[in-house]
Amino acid sequence: MKVFETPTEELKRKPAAFTDRITTDGRFGRAAEPGRYRLVINRACPWAHRVVITRRLMGLEGAISLAVTDPVQEIIADDAHWVFTSETGSPGGKDPVLGIHALREAYLARDPDYTGGVSVPALVDVTTGHLATNDFGRLTLDLATEWGGPAREGAPELYPAALRDEIDALCEDIYRDVNNGVYRAGFAPDQARYDAAVTALFARLDALEERLATRRYLVGDTITEADIRLFPTLVRFDSVYHGHFKCNIRKLTEYPALWAYARDLFQTPGFGDTTHFDHIRTHYYYVHTAINPTRVIAAGPDPRGWLTEHHRAELGGAPFGAGTAPGPVPADERVPPLG
Amino acid sequence: MKVFETPTEELKRKPAAFTDRITTDGRFGRAAEPGRYRLVINRACPWAHRVVITRRLMGLEGAISLAVTDPVQEIIADDAHWVFTSETGSPGGKDPVLGIHALREAYLARDPDYTGGVSVPALVDVTTGHLATNDFGRLTLDLATEWGGPAREGAPELYPAALRDEIDALCEDIYRDVNNGVYRAGFAPDQARYDAAVTALFARLDALEERLATRRYLVGDTITEADIRLFPTLVRFDSVYHGHFKCNIRKLTEYPALWAYARDLFQTPGFGDTTHFDHIRTHYYYVHTAINPTRVIAAGPDPRGWLTEHHRAELGGAPFGAGTAPGPVPADERVPPLG
Repeated sequence: MKVFETPTEELKRKPAAFTDRITTDGRFGRAAEPGRYRLVINRACPWAHRVVITRRLMGLEGAISLAVTDPVQEIIADDAHWVFTSETGSPGGKDPVLGIHALREAYLARDPDYTGGVSVPALVDVTTGHLATNDFGRLTLDLATEWGGPAREGAPELYPAALRDEIDALCEDIYRDVNNGVYRAGFAPDQARYDAAVTALFARLDALEERLATRRYLVGDTITEADIRLFPTLVRFDSVYHGHFKCNIRKLTEYPALWAYARDLFQTPGFGDTTHFDHIRTHYYYVHTAINPTRVIAAGPDPRGWLTEHHRAELGGAPFGAGTAPGPVPADERVPPLG
Repeated sequence: MKVFETPTEELKRKPAAFTDRITTDGRFGRAAEPGRYRLVINRACPWAHRVVITRRLMGLEGAISLAVTDPVQEIIADDAHWVFTSETGSPGGKDPVLGIHALREAYLARDPDYTGGVSVPALVDVTTGHLATNDFGRLTLDLATEWGGPAREGAPELYPAALRDEIDALCEDIYRDVNNGVYRAGFAPDQARYDAAVTALFARLDALEERLATRRYLVGDTITEADIRLFPTLVRFDSVYHGHFKCNIRKLTEYPALWAYARDLFQTPGFGDTTHFDHIRTHYYYVHTAINPTRVIAAGPDPRGWLTEHHRAELGGAPFGAGTAPGPVPADERVPPLG
């Protein structure tokens, strides 16, 4: 999502600007065709991370290609913009498929008069270079439910019809208090709004700790959309939210169940293998000069703790239900190994 | 010490401006006379905290009175100054004994042409209102060795002659890497200097962890100057240095021996009963706008962890050697209880 630069008022996220749904039958104008779309992300962004995880679990790497922006945004027309750089694998500073330097070019291709925010994740139609959708809330759901055709054999059911109400209700709480709560705390313009955000955040984490003490996954016995939405916040928690966003009542590692749950997911194909700690730490600490003027990037903590045993299999459940684990990460999409 | 406001160059502490030693025999001009001096501190300042601890352990509360400044400094003549306020117990915003609002007035009484920094701890001669010394490095040593006469019966030997070389050598390492190291990390003007400071800090903490795994105190079998110098940094570590100063490779609570050692001291009269977490958190987060422009004060962690059992008595040793524990804190000097 767009970076919120100046904490003078409470963070309010705007709805996605372009919300074209891409479906099996193309009923909203665009169909789920392999090779037609390119997913533009940043490795630091938790909202983009959800989509990368879903794409991996569904085995859509061959159907939807991936474009990774630099963790540090570039100032273009007085705004911070996601760009492609040679340092992060785009020779000449242009995405080799889309031929653009800044993601905003795909937004402007779609609407030359567009003046709103530019955010990742973004799905771009490679046949036209137009942004199709930046609706992060919808993207994972559609990848999970509308892309069954191009998906791999053994792809799991991530949003089972019978569990949708429970998943939706839980995700609403998690979004408000956790996913977005860390941002409301970190960019709070005053003490009162920080206090409210951090109190709600830790109350929700306490509730999740209790829920996960006896259940391996958030809803049902397998990985669902709910886990995919919680994980990107948890995996960033001790590296950036705890210190940089002042979410420091406890570290994730101080929640026995939540920390073991997060490690279990991290060690499951699709989660840890899409997590890039260097990009995460660099982006948050370097870009948010309104809350970290020196741009110094904090050194800790050592992420190798994510590889320790979790013993969560004892709780039962099967990560992919009747499905199977995804295969290895494509060679050109690998993140650096820990340690 | 003086707050370092703008991290544009590496923090370099200046020597104390006034270093008049106050001794038993008055050989430097001033003698250790009960009732003649007032100790001006701030509860947030670790350098002042050392002196408050020593004063308590030596039982000098009746001999040297205490003046506590507000945790938030006031801007006077473009500089941040320690001041007395009615909110922190000085009616009308003036210290009732010295009759001054800002500590700088005692510096200027001593030297009307003084233009240097103004720091706590400061010992002020109440007979003249002149600053006697702000030499934080010397103050604790002199309170421990030159104030035997006014000290309480049972006052411990905090700087035993036979252990001075070992204490001095250890304190030099602790000063460079830990006491001052957290400031060098927090106010580092660039990544390279931050990296150097934080690496040296945690290497030293690792070494102290090993040293304290088998010894109850740093030097010998009793509390010494070395413990008094390390404690003020440890007790502030997770509340302010970990997040605000980016010393986040580990929390203090993640070092089993060091954390138990720090709790043991905290629960010993003189240490925890002189620690004011609200003043600590308020001062650091509110005052250092160069590294925390929003002035939002982080909520965590819960300091009640300091009251948990430490099991350090099993290592032997006696906190006060042949001496005894100090009595209760004078009623007008009490800090708020935890929780």
